[in-house]
Amino acid sequence: MESSQTQSKTVVSEVVQKSTLAKLAAPRLSLLSTDQKNKALLLMADALVAETSSIIEANAKDLQRGKEIGTSQSLLDRLALNEDRIEAMAEGLRQVVELPDPIGDILEEVTRPNGLHIRKLRVPIGVIGIIYEARPNVTVDAAGLCLKTGNAVVLRGGSSALSSNQRVIEVLHEALSRSDVPTDAIQIILDPNRSSVDEMLKLNGLLDVLIPRGGHALIQNVVKNATVPVIETGAGICHTYLDASANYEMALNIAINAKVQRPSVCNSMETLLIHQSFAAEHLASIADQFTSLNVELRGCAAARELAPVIKKVTDEDWDTEYNDYILNIRIVSELDEALEHIRLHSTMHSECIITESAEHAERFLQEVDAAAVYHNASTRFTDGFEFGFGAEIGISTQKLHARGPMGLPALTSTKYIIKGSGQIRG
Amino acid sequence: MESSQTQSKTVVSEVVQKSTLAKLAAPRLSLLSTDQKNKALLLMADALVAETSSIIEANAKDLQRGKEIGTSQSLLDRLALNEDRIEAMAEGLRQVVELPDPIGDILEEVTRPNGLHIRKLRVPIGVIGIIYEARPNVTVDAAGLCLKTGNAVVLRGGSSALSSNQRVIEVLHEALSRSDVPTDAIQIILDPNRSSVDEMLKLNGLLDVLIPRGGHALIQNVVKNATVPVIETGAGICHTYLDASANYEMALNIAINAKVQRPSVCNSMETLLIHQSFAAEHLASIADQFTSLNVELRGCAAARELAPVIKKVTDEDWDTEYNDYILNIRIVSELDEALEHIRLHSTMHSECIITESAEHAERFLQEVDAAAVYHNASTRFTDGFEFGFGAEIGISTQKLHARGPMGLPALTSTKYIIKGSGQIRG
Repeated sequence: MESSQTQSKTVVSEVVQKSTLAKLAAPRLSLLSTDQKNKALLLMADALVAETSSIIEANAKDLQRGKEIGTSQSLLDRLALNEDRIEAMAEGLRQVVELPDPIGDILEEVTRPNGLHIRKLRVPIGVIGIIYEARPNVTVDAAGLCLKTGNAVVLRGGSSALSSNQRVIEVLHEALSRSDVPTDAIQIILDPNRSSVDEMLKLNGLLDVLIPRGGHALIQNVVKNATVPVIETGAGICHTYLDASANYEMALNIAINAKVQRPSVCNSMETLLIHQSFAAEHLASIADQFTSLNVELRGCAAARELAPVIKKVTDEDWDTEYNDYILNIRIVSELDEALEHIRLHSTMHSECIITESAEHAERFLQEVDAAAVYHNASTRFTDGFEFGFGAEIGISTQKLHARGPMGLPALTSTKYIIKGSGQIRG
Repeated sequence: MESSQTQSKTVVSEVVQKSTLAKLAAPRLSLLSTDQKNKALLLMADALVAETSSIIEANAKDLQRGKEIGTSQSLLDRLALNEDRIEAMAEGLRQVVELPDPIGDILEEVTRPNGLHIRKLRVPIGVIGIIYEARPNVTVDAAGLCLKTGNAVVLRGGSSALSSNQRVIEVLHEALSRSDVPTDAIQIILDPNRSSVDEMLKLNGLLDVLIPRGGHALIQNVVKNATVPVIETGAGICHTYLDASANYEMALNIAINAKVQRPSVCNSMETLLIHQSFAAEHLASIADQFTSLNVELRGCAAARELAPVIKKVTDEDWDTEYNDYILNIRIVSELDEALEHIRLHSTMHSECIITESAEHAERFLQEVDAAAVYHNASTRFTDGFEFGFGAEIGISTQKLHARGPMGLPALTSTKYIIKGSGQIRG
């Protein structure tokens, strides 16, 4: 080994190594045809189904480890894979095949007076980093959506799903090796230490964007510490305001749906605001209905007076995303007070007014600053599938790049292509 | 003073105080009509012209201070205001009046099978932080573009223009006080310490986006340290590739234009890549032309052999944005070598191929990953006005939100407005 003395001693981390491979694969991915990408997605789907037993075997190791360290039953339930869940993952990939490919779409086209022909095209972003928690279905879902949009992806899932994710990626890589898509397009970070996340947050130049998917702590860690651009997703302190003129049946149905149809998700309601006259007439029965559905109610003094079943709310409660069978209730004297409460406590995800007043509806829709603002419908509809996008990479709660449910176009950038005939600038 | 013992002792910094005022003004700004905003812009323009002498007086203080601390003549030239320059600032505002207002534009509209009517509207981003260097015209320019798009703005200009900026803002505020636009919409940070910039970088929750405008060091400080979302602008290591089949006259004209028409700007050329056969025939005369225009040439060994006037290039030179009369030259054996060089050294701003081969042009346009990719035209055209946007807030070199020259839509976000008739999710 004659060069041993001058050999570099730099140890390249798994994160840098795999992100570099993804970066190198990205230019080739951007040139793939829709057909090439779809064929790979179908091979991936078939491979997952064919390898069901080996994936369940790997998953059993994660479950065993989870039980040993005392993981909660609800987390174990989300982690567990079975034939149906693996088939659902494969079916998700097949649905992505059916979606139109946004890459290459011409968004603008103009010929300037000097003869320059300018087109603005959709192109892949490049390399997308996804930082998420336990669920192994996110691994397949994110890989599929990134591949369809010509992006390379660096996945960093929770350590509790390590064996499952590793086996799933082996299966996907084997499928890609039989396709025109380079296997380097999909990378997974297996280092379970938090330092691997920290490293991804600062990997400007290799990662083009980070998308965190998970709970509040995970997302805030990424938003607060990343220097790579981030698409912030998820946090939802959503309000429903029952106006003086609300239709009682509709108001009750929508409020119940927004709270209990699936309390664990970001578009469910955390706080119900009620106009004082509507509350005087209906709060007692509304409180009964929620109580019978096992929802704990916490409210302001005026609310507690009308319905003693309501417990005392704290200042912190107004800013808490429960994701649980708990609901805050506040009585307001007029629309403006509801708007002000929302301005102070909303995470700008989804907000709703129930009213028969066209004027109040219009004011609410215009003045509330949120990704999705509703009149007379449940906030639970804020979802890529419900909006007709056919897919969802998450729900953006930031204002740059993408806001609200993100379909495939949220995973794209643009590029100007300019054709000339010798033009120079004067 | 009975409450003195319990009074809060918290000192709120200028940055937090002014950003809070901007944040509080933002909701009102988002509801202004186009007419209200345009009237305010015209009042601002007239006020600048009317107050020309007091602005020049304030500017004289900056120039005096600059001379005392030995500021370079070129910086003093950029800092200096006179009647013409103030009239140009006012004229810029009048041009913004003429631009279509993007706020309220309906980008998508659909009625879902369940009857939900979903519209995606353009809305203001909220509060935009602009961090920039000496030129006082940026103060007016940025204030005008943010106002037209219904955004509040927090400006933090260079300390060398402090007196000028302060007077300009006083004039703009006085104009706003006669309009429907709240004066709090435009804020300027006067604290000249770097800590005020550092504070802005972390002001998540009050600032919705940061746009740095200035040199490499300023931009990199913002990109590397901000946790507020950033739109990265500016850095341009732009290449022009002269292919084997390039038309000599066209190639020479475009290369000269890209280098010397205005070397100090980001879309000017830093490196000329030349196919070996084209170089064998033409490099000597190309080198002569550049030399006669006072451009210093630095090149690879092959280039120096063909034109001894070329000096030796260093590894660092390929990654340097000169913004000066210096040009790197490299001979490549084929298109792929040019593509590879660009992949390694481009800042993904503007890249150009000069060729008569449709096939090579198409490969270059598809494969080069940059905000603007040219065939047979000068990279100097990457500019909001040249693209027909009528304005430019900067040229984004990142891939999220906006890429390339940014017109008014780059200063907007979107919002979904959903109208229902009692829909709940099943």
